[in-house]
Amino acid sequence: MQSFHPPQRTLMGPGPSDVNPRILQAMSRPTIGHLDPSFIQLMDEIKSLLQFAFKTTNALTLPLSAPGSAGMEAVFVNLLEPGDKAIVCQNGVFGGRMKDNVERCGATAILVQDAWGAPVNPNKVEAALREHPDARLLAFVHAETSTGVRSDAQSLAALAARHGVLCVMDAVTSLGGMEVEIDLWGVDAVYSGSQKCLSCAPGLSPVSFSPRAAERIRARRTKVQSWFLDMNLIMDYWGSGTRRSYHHTAPVNALYGLHEALCILAEEGLGAAWERHRLHHEALVSGLEAMGLALHVAPDWRLPQLNAVMVPEGVDEAMIRASLLRDHGLEIGAGLGAMAGKIWRIGLMGHACNRRNVLLCLAALEDSLASAGAAIQTGLALSAAHARYAQS
Amino acid sequence: MQSFHPPQRTLMGPGPSDVNPRILQAMSRPTIGHLDPSFIQLMDEIKSLLQFAFKTTNALTLPLSAPGSAGMEAVFVNLLEPGDKAIVCQNGVFGGRMKDNVERCGATAILVQDAWGAPVNPNKVEAALREHPDARLLAFVHAETSTGVRSDAQSLAALAARHGVLCVMDAVTSLGGMEVEIDLWGVDAVYSGSQKCLSCAPGLSPVSFSPRAAERIRARRTKVQSWFLDMNLIMDYWGSGTRRSYHHTAPVNALYGLHEALCILAEEGLGAAWERHRLHHEALVSGLEAMGLALHVAPDWRLPQLNAVMVPEGVDEAMIRASLLRDHGLEIGAGLGAMAGKIWRIGLMGHACNRRNVLLCLAALEDSLASAGAAIQTGLALSAAHARYAQS
Repeated sequence: MQSFHPPQRTLMGPGPSDVNPRILQAMSRPTIGHLDPSFIQLMDEIKSLLQFAFKTTNALTLPLSAPGSAGMEAVFVNLLEPGDKAIVCQNGVFGGRMKDNVERCGATAILVQDAWGAPVNPNKVEAALREHPDARLLAFVHAETSTGVRSDAQSLAALAARHGVLCVMDAVTSLGGMEVEIDLWGVDAVYSGSQKCLSCAPGLSPVSFSPRAAERIRARRTKVQSWFLDMNLIMDYWGSGTRRSYHHTAPVNALYGLHEALCILAEEGLGAAWERHRLHHEALVSGLEAMGLALHVAPDWRLPQLNAVMVPEGVDEAMIRASLLRDHGLEIGAGLGAMAGKIWRIGLMGHACNRRNVLLCLAALEDSLASAGAAIQTGLALSAAHARYAQS
Repeated sequence: MQSFHPPQRTLMGPGPSDVNPRILQAMSRPTIGHLDPSFIQLMDEIKSLLQFAFKTTNALTLPLSAPGSAGMEAVFVNLLEPGDKAIVCQNGVFGGRMKDNVERCGATAILVQDAWGAPVNPNKVEAALREHPDARLLAFVHAETSTGVRSDAQSLAALAARHGVLCVMDAVTSLGGMEVEIDLWGVDAVYSGSQKCLSCAPGLSPVSFSPRAAERIRARRTKVQSWFLDMNLIMDYWGSGTRRSYHHTAPVNALYGLHEALCILAEEGLGAAWERHRLHHEALVSGLEAMGLALHVAPDWRLPQLNAVMVPEGVDEAMIRASLLRDHGLEIGAGLGAMAGKIWRIGLMGHACNRRNVLLCLAALEDSLASAGAAIQTGLALSAAHARYAQS
């Protein structure tokens, strides 16, 4: 066996996104002990930086030592007990995964369904909250990675508050790429991933719990079914003070990377990062539309960081992705679940969200589609993107 | 906030151990997509290399995307269903954690207890197996990291086979540092960690399930309570062939590191790595004993890679560790659980298991103990270690 040397890629799929070289370098620094005084200090800085990124003062804000899907599981296994009821909004793959998680906790999931590509409908949510006054929580996906749609997190959180249930939000794809306001909106539990708009390597899941959610966890009648994800135990390791109880061995080098990613975000500023995502998204969309391609989501609800593009009639979507990868070193994403074969997913996330990548993607996509004989407009995409940039 | 630059350390605690610079470099290579054809090939190589390291032909052999404690949980949540009974051997912290995991699955743990520092007693295990013919599995820790004791895995696995129960083994600290023979011994489920004798960064848990264990998982009456750790879902992502179902986003860069760590182990050879651990352990023990320090475990049952040293009467063990860290950049471990304050744990794991570190540790420990006025023999430790090296 030989050492692995990855091929050169530009990552414009649904994540992982291109990792900033500063982060790669940080991850390669020598490993130190997970109870080293310097490491405890690093942990404290990461907690502060995550509070900044989530816009929260929640004390229970930290990265879990596993990917975003473990973050999702952590939220449900800690907040739900057997027999509980949860209202789960589903308008894509990840709402469906929430339902599966709720049921594996021995709880009942009340589904509020919307079309894949449409935002969660607050009226339906309100009706479900009225019909199920015994529900313990409302859960929704802020930015559905499978469809490229945003939901109105602020309104949904307000509904949860009005009906006295906890509000759980999936911010895997939204954190760092668009407005996320945990305290202002009143979100009680949120999880994200390191490999989307934070542009870090995959493998960590930042989470945050409000004091109300933390109190719920402390007041459980039953033990959390997962030892590894039991926040009561994790708090003792990530808690305040210099005495930390050993729980598991933290992924030291991955945390070096997350710290660096959050420093980069803090240097840019949240508002500037959100605005950058919006700008490059608009330039990309201008170019795609000039090519004659259509987006899956209505303009008001599009995610800037994840663009769902309809595959034109008669085009073999997998062949186009293979050609982009082979001829241009460019990765874009396929459709997932019900959207398989129908859309491509073009990510503009974090470090990968820049002018160079927008133009590369438009040029490469036009080249591959034209080579495959697709009926697209050629020669217009780049100037359409340029025109959008010229306005800013 | 500034970028984090770790202090220079030599890691001779219970793990993480010093990471080989080749591995640090591998982890810093550019991230690629978790469904990239090149990444699928990397995954296949990692599976083969883990089969080599575990000495198994089990098809279901792969690294979980979380630390060793998640590996432990994965084994129990997949193999146990509510109402099941499991025989759990406890002779240290990690056997106790197994019990907690078993109970969180809604199963009953039958404890077989031995003193902390003694190996698991096969006679007691046999008695428990006789008394509980309805048990589903027998679980034990091969190398107890909290006490530095080895148990006789081969005999315990043979007992499990004779009584028709599955055999579960914790190989977190043993893999790569001492004889581990999954197929020869007949172990049905095993988990390990990346940060011990594989000398990789913490964060991954290699696991392996025998065909019999995999069949048990497929034949479950109930869903696995953890979505993230459900091997039925994980198999579809790590399975054979080029079509892989997305489950979660794999920790790409961490897997670059594990691949490199396993390449290094394969270059050295398993037998040579085991022998290297034995040699440096014996040299370290010669030096410690020459200093007048005693080991906690009887000679036949000592782990070469984790040496539990009795804290001499009247010595403030935390002060000594602080002095080692401050004056020598050397990390050794404290006692854990019932052993807190009573022992130090000196690791000689993987890349950190070498002559330089043995001599550094003896010199630094003698310096710190003498400075603290401890009643030890000075001036003899290094020559005692040299003498042991001279024999080989």
